[in-house]
Order: sequence, then C-alpha cells, then structure tokens
Amino acid sequence: MNIYETIERPTLLLDEETARHNIQNMAAKARAAKARFRPHFKTHQSREIGRWFREEGVQSITVSSAGMAEWFAEDGWNDILIAFPVNIREAPRIEALAGKIHLGLVLESPEAARLLAVKTSAAADIWLKIDTGAGRTGISWDDTRAALQAATAARAVAHLRLRGLLTHAGHTYQASGRSDVERISVESISRLKFTRQMLAGAGFRNLELSIGDTPGSWILDDFQGADEIRPGNFVFFDAKHALSGTCAWENVAVALACPVVALHPERGEAVLYGGGIHLSMDTVSWHDQRVYALAALPDPEGRRWGPPLPDTAVVRLSQEHGILKAPGQVLDQLHPGSLLCLLPAHSCMTVQCMGSYRTLSGRTLKIMPRPGE
Amino acid sequence: MNIYETIERPTLLLDEETARHNIQNMAAKARAAKARFRPHFKTHQSREIGRWFREEGVQSITVSSAGMAEWFAEDGWNDILIAFPVNIREAPRIEALAGKIHLGLVLESPEAARLLAVKTSAAADIWLKIDTGAGRTGISWDDTRAALQAATAARAVAHLRLRGLLTHAGHTYQASGRSDVERISVESISRLKFTRQMLAGAGFRNLELSIGDTPGSWILDDFQGADEIRPGNFVFFDAKHALSGTCAWENVAVALACPVVALHPERGEAVLYGGGIHLSMDTVSWHDQRVYALAALPDPEGRRWGPPLPDTAVVRLSQEHGILKAPGQVLDQLHPGSLLCLLPAHSCMTVQCMGSYRTLSGRTLKIMPRPGE
Repeated sequence: MNIYETIERPTLLLDEETARHNIQNMAAKARAAKARFRPHFKTHQSREIGRWFREEGVQSITVSSAGMAEWFAEDGWNDILIAFPVNIREAPRIEALAGKIHLGLVLESPEAARLLAVKTSAAADIWLKIDTGAGRTGISWDDTRAALQAATAARAVAHLRLRGLLTHAGHTYQASGRSDVERISVESISRLKFTRQMLAGAGFRNLELSIGDTPGSWILDDFQGADEIRPGNFVFFDAKHALSGTCAWENVAVALACPVVALHPERGEAVLYGGGIHLSMDTVSWHDQRVYALAALPDPEGRRWGPPLPDTAVVRLSQEHGILKAPGQVLDQLHPGSLLCLLPAHSCMTVQCMGSYRTLSGRTLKIMPRPGE
Repeated sequence: MNIYETIERPTLLLDEETARHNIQNMAAKARAAKARFRPHFKTHQSREIGRWFREEGVQSITVSSAGMAEWFAEDGWNDILIAFPVNIREAPRIEALAGKIHLGLVLESPEAARLLAVKTSAAADIWLKIDTGAGRTGISWDDTRAALQAATAARAVAHLRLRGLLTHAGHTYQASGRSDVERISVESISRLKFTRQMLAGAGFRNLELSIGDTPGSWILDDFQGADEIRPGNFVFFDAKHALSGTCAWENVAVALACPVVALHPERGEAVLYGGGIHLSMDTVSWHDQRVYALAALPDPEGRRWGPPLPDTAVVRLSQEHGILKAPGQVLDQLHPGSLLCLLPAHSCMTVQCMGSYRTLSGRTLKIMPRPGE
C-alpha cells in the first residue's frame, strides 16, 4: 500500500521510525546524564505513543492538565506530574488522582498551597514553579521572599511533600541558534540552583531540580546536575525547531498531508484543503515573515515525505483553506487533486487540531478527546 | 443552579438566547430582501443549533467539507452546499452524498469539472467561485476567459447543473468600519453581476448569485438582488466583529470561561488556565497590538457574562496558558480559582478547539468530530 494514494482529506501523517529514533536519542542522553527522563506527553497525547516511551524505560511522565493525567493513568502510568499551576477548581479530580497514582503538582503561591490544604487530603508531591527568565509564570528565581513564602506554605500542609523546584526555560524558543540555546539553558539551571541554595539556607533541604524545554534538552550534552528533564515536543519536532537549527529536518516526524484544490499561478499560489482547523493558527518566522507551515512532496514509493520545497510556504490560512506561496517550478508539478505534505509551524497544536495520526504503514492512532469532550 | 459555580476547567459557554436572537434577525432580513437564507454551519457545527435555524424556516445550508455535509445530512438536512473548491480526492463521498441529498459543489477551473465528469455520476449543482476582491480563491470577476472556460466545462458534464455564481467577500473582515463594509459589499455584488452578465451574453442564462460574509450580510439592508446569503459567524459573533463595529458586544453569544491559576501584579498580569488548545491561536487587533481574547466577569447571579473589562486582554498564549494583561483594579478582584469569561478573537476557531458548548442553563451541546476523528 502506498499511503499517499489512500488519502482523501487533510491527514496527519506520523513517521513512526523517526519518532522512535527521537525518543531513543533523548532517553539515552538522560541516562548518560543520570537525570530522570519525565517526558511531557502533551505533544503526542496518544496512549500508543506513550508505550513507545515505556519501551525505552520511561516510568515517570509530565502532563499539562488533570484530564490528561486521568487519560494516561487509565493506561497504567502511575507517576505523573501535572506541570501547570494547580487549578484549584479541579480539586475533586486532583484528590481522586492523588489517591490512585503518585501525583506531582505545581504551585507558585502560598494561596494555592492553602487552598490545597482545605480542598484536598490525599498525598501529593509539590514542585515550586520558578521563573528563570521566560516570564510566563512562576516565582522569579531572585525573589527570595516569594519563594520562601510558597515553600513555607507548602510545608505547612501535612499531606503535601515539597519535592523540588521546576522551571520551563521557554525563552530558548526565541534563541538565535544552538549556542544561544546552550547559553540560556545553562543560565536557567544556574538560576534554579541559586533558588535551591537560598531555600536550603532557610532549612528546605534536598530539593530536586526539574527542567525541560525541548531545545535545551536536545542540545545540552549534560544537564548540569538537574535531577529530571521534561521535554515534550522533541518526539515530533516541527518547522520551528528545524528552522532554528535545534534539530534537522530529518528529525521532523509529523506532516499534514493536504490535497491541492485550486491553482493561481498568476499570483504564485495554490489553494490547499488544509486550514486553521487542521494546522492551527500558530506561525513560525521564515524569511522575515510569519508562515503556518513549509511544504514537501510525498514520496512516490509511499515512504517518508521529501525535504521542504525551496521558497514554498503556507502564507495565509482561513478555517479550511491554506494558501501556499510557491515558485513556478513547484506550482507546475501540481494540479487539483495533488497532495502536499505540510511541515507545521508547531506540531503540538496541529496534533491537537487533528485528533489522530496515520502512520506511514496505514495504522490510525487516536489522541485524547478535546477539552470540552 | 449558577452555571459559573459548576465550572472546573476551560468551558465554552453559549448564551442560547443571544444566538437565537442573531438567527432570527438574519432570517428576517433575508425574508425582507427575498433572498434564500442558506446559513454556513461551519461556525457552530452542532446539530442542535442547526435545528434552531430550522425553527426559523431555514431549509438550505452551507458547509465547508464533505464530512460536514455528511454530519448534517444525517440529521435530516437535504439541501447542502459545500462552499469549498471541490476536493476531487473525496469523489466517492461526494458521489454518495449526491445520491442522497440535493448537493451543491463549488468549482473554479475546467480541470475540476473534467475530474468530476470522470469520477462522479450523481446529479449535483455547480456554483462557480468568483473572486470579487478577497484574493483567496476563485476566478477573478474580470477574467472573462477563465469564467467562460469553467462554465463551458461544467455545462459539458451531463450530470452537473450549472446553478450560479458564488462569492465570499472576505475582505469585509479588513474593512475600516460599517460604511466601508457596505462599500465593499455593494462593490462585490456589482462585480458578481458583471460576471453574470458576461456569461449571459455567452449563452449561460438564469445563473443565481450567492453571497454571504457575516459583516456584509449583517450590515446591508438589502442584498442588491442576490439570490441567497450564506453568513455563518453571525450566530455567535466574536471580539473581531464587536471591535470592528459590525455587531454590538450584546450580540456575542459565546465566551470561554477560564479559571485564574496565578497572579503577577508586579507586571500587571494574571495566568489563566486557557491556552491555544482552547481559544485557538487566532488574534484580533486591539489598541495596536494582536490579542487572543478580551475578558469579562461572570454574572454573580449566573446569567450572561458582563461587558468587556477595560484595558484587559489575553496578550500571550501557549498550549494551555493564557496571559491576561489587566489594570490593578481588575487584578485586585482576582485570586487563584476565580473565573473570567474570555471573548475570543474568532469564535469559529474556539468552537472547533473545544468540541462542545455549555448553555447558561447547564446543557451540553456537542459539535461534529475533529478532522482526523
């Protein structure tokens, strides 16, 4: 079977071999660095892909919501960290989870600890979220008073165990290249160590350090003594990481196969069946503009898609239409009914939009339901 | 029951009364203008909401994919136009649909007509897609040769009936205000009439005209003789339409209720549980920046949310986090566990992300499955 001949509408293709290679590579790095590998499962959201990690010895995972923790707990995972500031409105679900599995929660304020004290009673690990420069959320690494207040409030709750400090150096996504990723990552870990040292001085000892953005985890050779890494996106990567040099194009493990439905060579464009509900509206910088995806040709033999086509990208997107800008020699190869493989700006979001994968051998893998389902 | 007290995680609230009011208003306008009301169902994607349209006398609908046509055909709709350049890779599904219901298809090239001739045999209406200035897809309204070629190719296929000309004046979304919407809409219809007149001169008579973006359909008092209108978004509207003046804030019928999980008053920010997988990554221009949503307070009595809070918007978004920028007097009212109602940039995309609605009276309405499901 040639997979491309079976595709009728936008379909998220998964190159299993590449995804498994990415998993193996990251697992080997974590072993070499003696760090726990606690991969973030929000990227793939698939129980089957979760098992590929288990085959590499992974036992602890990261998720981004209580619902996602339930989804993977039901498949046998029993050490799960919800790496998101605890949502106290879900206290009953958190309580139920904590009664079943070894649960980790993230907090960054004394208020959140006090709310957990009142609304839950089952044991859970607490990780303090530290902001080492990303500026999204967490206690600023140099805000000694806030860190002490949060740690003290967490320690005051008998059923909570203050386990460690957690950061997400998301500013590596804006780095200017591999050496800049390395610089930011090393700085982030050293800031986390500063916070740990300060807390140790105040009597909070043996706190673990948890780090884990994809660029830093993929590029660093050792994790500077961090106890665990939590990267997620690396399982598939995407155009953002390939364009920034974090990974090679060969590491990108998903592509959205889209039919061509119309051609407008007079303005150098093709219209694709594949829009915001398939790709997501996320963008990446490419030749000084924001684009939604690059594009590759299917392989004539039904194997993995080709390299990104030169000077070709999805430059506009509506709900179901994608507008591909491409040079004449690319457009000349297309006609209504041709297929292109889009390399999305941000694979996590495309996976979420699509809801399932098809492997190159034709198997369908489902992901967890949508937020409202 | 106060609906807000029941919300644990990001939840898409639907104000049924407002949505029904919007539907009634548009249906009344179409009746007054003697135009067929063929609403686009891609915005709501819900069979139950579809029935609210039926209660207003609607019998013909618009969808954006063969899958969506199947979804609504199964609920008893039997006059469906797929307003998207025909995707010939789905010929078997199109054939099956055309055998069951009165199906309309859109094409814009002779190649597409020839492919339909070879790959289908059941009767279908053909609408030629005309580009009246939006520049997304379609035959340019003044490209006489291309229109004639496509019309001739469609007429040559015995089982196809060339029904009319169809446009989507999507450039009204970039209009500078109501009078600009009006100007663009009138120009668009007059261009469509030009194409019709030219085709009539070549023997293609009695072609219908189908128009239908939300801004034009909502603002125009009469449709200049167009035979049908196909607006979709107006059922809910969103921040884009309210900010541009197309509708009032009171017309916005959906809001994403999101828990507050952390506060950072030192930088004027709150962290919300509600990110790209809930809102979508679509943006709207607000005070010279791109934002993802505005925000309102829940009603203390459990009724519809309040008006948008001044100087308050979701300015950054990651997969599950939303970063709200707000003045001190807004942040002072929030704590971890508070609820905010986000008014999304683009409601169609938020609906797609969430997968269901909850009405203010607590009923859950599902939408159709994701593209890969």
